Amino acid sequence: MRISSLAERSGVPLATVKYYLREGLLPPGRATSATQAQYDEDHLHRLALIRALTDVVGLSVARTRTVLDLIDSSPDDLFATLGQAVAALPPYVEECEEGQPRARAAIEALGWVYDPHYPAVAQLERALAAAESVGMPIEEQRLLGYGEHVRAIAQIDIAGVPRDDPGAAVEHAVLGTAIVEPVLAALRRLAHQDVSSVELGHRQGPPSGGGDAGR
Amino acid sequence: MRISSLAERSGVPLATVKYYLREGLLPPGRATSATQAQYDEDHLHRLALIRALTDVVGLSVARTRTVLDLIDSSPDDLFATLGQAVAALPPYVEECEEGQPRARAAIEALGWVYDPHYPAVAQLERALAAAESVGMPIEEQRLLGYGEHVRAIAQIDIAGVPRDDPGAAVEHAVLGTAIVEPVLAALRRLAHQDVSSVELGHRQGPPSGGGDAGR
Repeated sequence: MRISSLAERSGVPLATVKYYLREGLLPPGRATSATQAQYDEDHLHRLALIRALTDVVGLSVARTRTVLDLIDSSPDDLFATLGQAVAALPPYVEECEEGQPRARAAIEALGWVYDPHYPAVAQLERALAAAESVGMPIEEQRLLGYGEHVRAIAQIDIAGVPRDDPGAAVEHAVLGTAIVEPVLAALRRLAHQDVSSVELGHRQGPPSGGGDAGR
Repeated sequence: MRISSLAERSGVPLATVKYYLREGLLPPGRATSATQAQYDEDHLHRLALIRALTDVVGLSVARTRTVLDLIDSSPDDLFATLGQAVAALPPYVEECEEGQPRARAAIEALGWVYDPHYPAVAQLERALAAAESVGMPIEEQRLLGYGEHVRAIAQIDIAGVPRDDPGAAVEHAVLGTAIVEPVLAALRRLAHQDVSSVELGHRQGPPSGGGDAGR
């Protein structure tokens, strides 16, 4: 298809498609003359992915390029590549110089395999330090409880990752991490409401009504 | 203590303490003369809470005031008040006009008690719509798996809420929700690494090393 059809079918404005071409996010089409090129279904898929990463996940063009490059590199070492891809997602936390003692103690208490340079270690360190700073440290028993259920969630996530195509696996891991995080956060707030409706004696459902249709 | 000691002991700059007084976030001290007032431990606690809400959680002064007002109102209906307090936290999602069909179907499949006007319903609707838009809809079986483990996490959260002091319960719910969310997000990324180290054949630990100390 021509670039105008590509723009139309993808719903991406023509000027934006041209911008992605110039920036190298979208590979060039097959040239059919000095001024025209043909695009195919792969270009449509790539455009949808670029829009997902920029508009839905909210990555900058530079971070989007990092993720796309990893997808295109068809990596041998999927474990390390997945880590790099997920590191392209916010929050962007610097590894701190003090060796991230809270995070390391926590992960070792959980007994998980981890790479100490993985950005999520610094992310955990910052989150645990923030909890301490407001007078709500996450004590070990609670951490182990969270860890057990979060690991079960991670198993559900990983079960969906394609195994035979490394590029697809990276794409799935980045989108899955970014897309499922807000779903889990919303579910947790809703679960608080359900649990507290039982434990705080609101067995009949909330005052504004309509809640127990599903029971 | 005098206002200067309050500033010193809390670590909050004097000008900021005065700003919080002017804005009504911090209640006035007990006047001891026309130009002086005495402050106590309650003021110190309140200052720490204001800093936690503004600096750590990242709320605006207006949102912080909403939460503080709820804490001070010593609410009768704790269930509704907790909902309002947590609604003061980001993300701020408008209830959408189409009745939030994805979220309602999801919560009803989970069988949870819920208030359809609770902001987390709109938050879930947006998150599920985003998942669909990138071609990764959360199918029901996966949703039920997530729901089971998220509800277990919510039970751990709720177990820590003080029962005999409604103001403390609201304070705990807001801080707990905001503070634990980043901990869980970081843990999930780390759990991905642990699970994939097993499932993708990295039983020996990651290439950059140092990971299996805890095993």
